[in-house]
Amino acid sequence: MHKTISLVAGLILTHPGVSVSAQVAPAPNGIEFPADYADWRVISISHRIDNKTMRVILGNDIAINAARNGHTMPWPNGAVLGKVVWKQMSEKSWPDAIAPEKFVHAEFMFKDTDKYASTAGWGYARWKGPKLKAYGNNATFATECVSCHTPVKDNDYVFTKPAPMYTMPK
Amino acid sequence: MHKTISLVAGLILTHPGVSVSAQVAPAPNGIEFPADYADWRVISISHRIDNKTMRVILGNDIAINAARNGHTMPWPNGAVLGKVVWKQMSEKSWPDAIAPEKFVHAEFMFKDTDKYASTAGWGYARWKGPKLKAYGNNATFATECVSCHTPVKDNDYVFTKPAPMYTMPK
Repeated sequence: MHKTISLVAGLILTHPGVSVSAQVAPAPNGIEFPADYADWRVISISHRIDNKTMRVILGNDIAINAARNGHTMPWPNGAVLGKVVWKQMSEKSWPDAIAPEKFVHAEFMFKDTDKYASTAGWGYARWKGPKLKAYGNNATFATECVSCHTPVKDNDYVFTKPAPMYTMPK
Repeated sequence: MHKTISLVAGLILTHPGVSVSAQVAPAPNGIEFPADYADWRVISISHRIDNKTMRVILGNDIAINAARNGHTMPWPNGAVLGKVVWKQMSEKSWPDAIAPEKFVHAEFMFKDTDKYASTAGWGYARWKGPKLKAYGNNATFATECVSCHTPVKDNDYVFTKPAPMYTMPK
């Protein structure tokens, strides 16, 4: 593992406010696994009917501040969006409800208009399964991500809209 | 508002680690609105097919620590579970996906086996709509909550199972 770390050291990209883990290999484009993503706050959720997966969309502090203040067009540099994806299952005690079963992957968008200019201002990364295997064989894997996100180019390449989370009366 | 606050002052229940808002009326059983719930971390998500609502289940620090360490049978005193509920809508840019539309309510379970002995160890509260109107006409409203949760009595009255959120390889 030390060998891996030293080999990629020249490629490691850092992001403000995001701690990284030395135990998970970085994505092929050099993006490090954000080890603290499970502590991030919620931006929204979604459910894909086509492939029966459910997800929560989280944000680092910069992303949460942007989402809560309506500063998402565009999202600011330093914002990181994380999506945790699970296969769905029926809830045993409430058959008309579905809930997460197995962890599928955690995937991320890192906003940096300079660093990620070649992928439209966002750096993409995904880690699959409980072993968090980095997705993609080489750095060109992100062209697939950009292609899929191009239909929402006018929403700064982001599908998610922040869900309302009222905490005080208007 | 000051009048309301002083009238209920004798009934206000406090909970460790939970800040409360003076601008939202407490539930009829005296439970205060946890004003910081939007900053809590994720335990799971769920989707009710029957009434087309989606939800994220959050936890205060005590609940998150319990969930991550498997200490949920029973949940420890001081744990608070929060559920944020939205009506669903189709995602315009991904028709096979659904996402939150309007905020329906935020509802909570406060674990305290002594204080809430009369409702099986949990204090229940719900605030509806963007104005966060407290649910229930009087303190007996919680019998409805307990009744609905009784099918999961053997799971400490909790429907939610913590969703796996891998952050390190096993």
